[in-house]
Amino acid sequence: MEDKIYTSYPPLLNPAQKEFLVATIKNWATQNGLLVRPAPTFVPKEVDPSGVLATNAPVTLFPSPFPKSCFDEAKALQTVYNRLYAAITCNEEWIGKIMEDLIDVDDFISHLWKVHLSVKKEGYSQTLSLGLYRSDYMVHAPSSSTTASLKQVEFNTISSSFGGLSSLVTSLHTELLTAPPGHSITYPSHPLFNSNTPPENPAVESLSAGLAAAHNAYGPSKATPALPTCILFLVQENERNTFDQLALSRQLTTVHKIPVFRLLSSEILDHTSIPNSNPSRPLIYSPPHAPDTQFEVTTAYLRCFYAPSDYKSERDWEARTHLERSAAIKCPTVLNQLSGCKVVQQVLAETTGPDHLASFLSDTDPATVARIRETFAPQYDLSSSGRGRDLALNVETAMNHVLKPQREGGGNNIYKEAIPDFLRSIPESEWKRWILMELIRPPPGAKNVALRTDGEVLSGDVISELGVYGTILWDQADGKISHNEQGGWLLRTKSKDVNEGGVATGFSSLDSILLY
Amino acid sequence: MEDKIYTSYPPLLNPAQKEFLVATIKNWATQNGLLVRPAPTFVPKEVDPSGVLATNAPVTLFPSPFPKSCFDEAKALQTVYNRLYAAITCNEEWIGKIMEDLIDVDDFISHLWKVHLSVKKEGYSQTLSLGLYRSDYMVHAPSSSTTASLKQVEFNTISSSFGGLSSLVTSLHTELLTAPPGHSITYPSHPLFNSNTPPENPAVESLSAGLAAAHNAYGPSKATPALPTCILFLVQENERNTFDQLALSRQLTTVHKIPVFRLLSSEILDHTSIPNSNPSRPLIYSPPHAPDTQFEVTTAYLRCFYAPSDYKSERDWEARTHLERSAAIKCPTVLNQLSGCKVVQQVLAETTGPDHLASFLSDTDPATVARIRETFAPQYDLSSSGRGRDLALNVETAMNHVLKPQREGGGNNIYKEAIPDFLRSIPESEWKRWILMELIRPPPGAKNVALRTDGEVLSGDVISELGVYGTILWDQADGKISHNEQGGWLLRTKSKDVNEGGVATGFSSLDSILLY
Repeated sequence: MEDKIYTSYPPLLNPAQKEFLVATIKNWATQNGLLVRPAPTFVPKEVDPSGVLATNAPVTLFPSPFPKSCFDEAKALQTVYNRLYAAITCNEEWIGKIMEDLIDVDDFISHLWKVHLSVKKEGYSQTLSLGLYRSDYMVHAPSSSTTASLKQVEFNTISSSFGGLSSLVTSLHTELLTAPPGHSITYPSHPLFNSNTPPENPAVESLSAGLAAAHNAYGPSKATPALPTCILFLVQENERNTFDQLALSRQLTTVHKIPVFRLLSSEILDHTSIPNSNPSRPLIYSPPHAPDTQFEVTTAYLRCFYAPSDYKSERDWEARTHLERSAAIKCPTVLNQLSGCKVVQQVLAETTGPDHLASFLSDTDPATVARIRETFAPQYDLSSSGRGRDLALNVETAMNHVLKPQREGGGNNIYKEAIPDFLRSIPESEWKRWILMELIRPPPGAKNVALRTDGEVLSGDVISELGVYGTILWDQADGKISHNEQGGWLLRTKSKDVNEGGVATGFSSLDSILLY
Repeated sequence: MEDKIYTSYPPLLNPAQKEFLVATIKNWATQNGLLVRPAPTFVPKEVDPSGVLATNAPVTLFPSPFPKSCFDEAKALQTVYNRLYAAITCNEEWIGKIMEDLIDVDDFISHLWKVHLSVKKEGYSQTLSLGLYRSDYMVHAPSSSTTASLKQVEFNTISSSFGGLSSLVTSLHTELLTAPPGHSITYPSHPLFNSNTPPENPAVESLSAGLAAAHNAYGPSKATPALPTCILFLVQENERNTFDQLALSRQLTTVHKIPVFRLLSSEILDHTSIPNSNPSRPLIYSPPHAPDTQFEVTTAYLRCFYAPSDYKSERDWEARTHLERSAAIKCPTVLNQLSGCKVVQQVLAETTGPDHLASFLSDTDPATVARIRETFAPQYDLSSSGRGRDLALNVETAMNHVLKPQREGGGNNIYKEAIPDFLRSIPESEWKRWILMELIRPPPGAKNVALRTDGEVLSGDVISELGVYGTILWDQADGKISHNEQGGWLLRTKSKDVNEGGVATGFSSLDSILLY
């Protein structure tokens, strides 16, 4: 069944069909805000000095087939994953132990940890913590005889993106499947299309509801005199994925009636302040366009500060510390960001030693804990005592693995037979900078066609990654959870020969799914 | 009151306010489809060979003040205007007499008339006729002591555009006036902004409802065997105003559940046909992307074929004739298009001779007819017997006039003191090609700031033109009207030194209004 689905999909397009479909998608994307700002390699600055141009987000022409059992399982586990990462974040001592080992491996992590320690020393002024998460998976189908299963690629605890655009891609594919009304002829016919549309995708609603929950939980103004409150989106300079973020702020403004402002991370220290005289440390935002007005920030939503490259100077670290010590609810806190490190995922997946997973989920029934564990791909550090070394140095076993840098945001992965030679080419003291992970084997033969942001249309073999969004609001002081929801999803599909690269770089596309 | 409003408006922007407002508008326009394709002078074809880029439509940063009395009057008169132009279109003999005089002046009009005559000879197969109109006005305020009145600039009976984008501009300005929720600080404060937002603008809903009314009135398929039905949008090649049109087709598809297709005027003869064997002459559309499928066109909506430049060869005239003789309801028919000629407006405005206006509106109370007449600016032909010659050749009276070419889509206007010399520089036999119109004097001192499609921000003295949309469906056989509605409006604002040029050329902006 599965093999057949992938080998006969998507239906072939003749030139007239392709032209119509591509033109329809270009227009739909533009009319509905499924857009990004163009890369400077596509539109040089001198063509558009004031930055008005936009282009379609990279999208697939067709939704991709996806096993219903895997999709349902990913959704079912999301609120458990939310609780797991809240529990990890509440266990500062446990995180601290892991950080100790990482400090000389990763100066980014080390710097983040220092921010936490300095705020801890002063005392946190806000115990509420908001997580807007995305758990990323691949379908693991090592052979056509085995049942497809779900394996986690990573768990994002900061700046989980594409919820806004992903909802739109779902709408786009749904419209293409059902257009025109009563006579679906936009796509060539295919068995998978019969009365089938992508599952609903409330990513915008659920992510915004998470932010609104934090805003409301903040309570009345802590400033004297009291100030009106707002949510602040902290964003990167030269952000091209603006419309993904604006989908959330539009929802917050129009549905939840909450003021939202955007502020560049480089301008945090210019336009926000914490009154020295106020022990509650409210974060005050003074909009530069309305200098007589001040707002108190209930929720600082970070769409920046997630990668080492976001910290260009000491001033950026100062800004991060400034946010962290304020009374604003952070999405996320530094501790919560650290819980999303690759090393945490690897420690949780360890099959020897203490069962961290079970202890973090001690109030969860063992069957559910086992289902979470089922989503872990086997992964190992390369300590001399561990199994990782044996698997990595033997070409036969290395063939089934990928070597990932421990360091966040750093370097390329090493694949399969290249692993033993690579390790022997670097000093053994460096090996602890790497994690060995068993390769996830997605369904072979999957194909799709993508419209890139520069208008190029490419087709070929693809690999897809499912992301499921979750939101959680909890109190770090007592671990009490006041909001925990699963909502919305993302499918990213990239051509098979591309091993790295996020969607925004144009090497991969936003997609949606048809369940089978 | 009025003087004061215009001289103190809009409020001044400091650099931070301007930067914020422009950035907010750019993002809002892009997120919400208030977009156009960029002109090749802005983005050369080689930068974007596949045509994926879009830019904001040209918009004003602020809504413009507009007298409530004039706005209300324009809306109140629209259904009367709809009836007037339906009645004119039903009087083929009357139109014919006017056309006789024009045939050697204007070969475009002459060509259109011949299309009508040839279809008349064969016999029309469809008596229903759909009008999607826009009546354009300026506020006439010759001095600060006189009350502002409404003067008609033109009445559009074909391809009345900008309904889709105009609704969006109204939403944009409304959001800017009320953002963020509860604390309006996006604009600097100004008395006109107090609890004031633009009137509602249901242009998309009303124009789409007009098209849907025609679609439903068409009745069951006339083909054998019966075919599914659709509305066909006939569009120009290299259209940059696509998203204005798509706002209507999205409404038709999602709300009215009617299939809509777009077809280039140059491809009408390739993809539509009328079966010779069928005396009802259904117009059959074969989508090139689904060659096994056929649709019967209930309504042919022309967003092309309105200007002489739309007819590049005899094949385009053939395509127009093909549509005209088909059973599809035309929006508009050739006769209805001809009723919108400048000369018709001038004949209606004549104060000597037969009272054409009163006879076309014979079933309307005289007070309403008088209100329609009030909206006419005095205008004259330059026949030897008429008053026009005297007014045009005397510099003192010429100062109060503009000379407009009789010919549709041809040449520039001649203004004020340049008129006498201009007329004397051309042979008297050519004078009948021109109409003399009394200048409309808009409120002096009106100012605004505009964001152009290339991102430039310009401010200065402006002139605004209000368009009011109306839709009407009637039967040419008996004049019976089955749908007659007013709905939605457009404000176009251009910088004062620009005398010509539509919005799409970038010399003028889409705007909305604040009533006073």
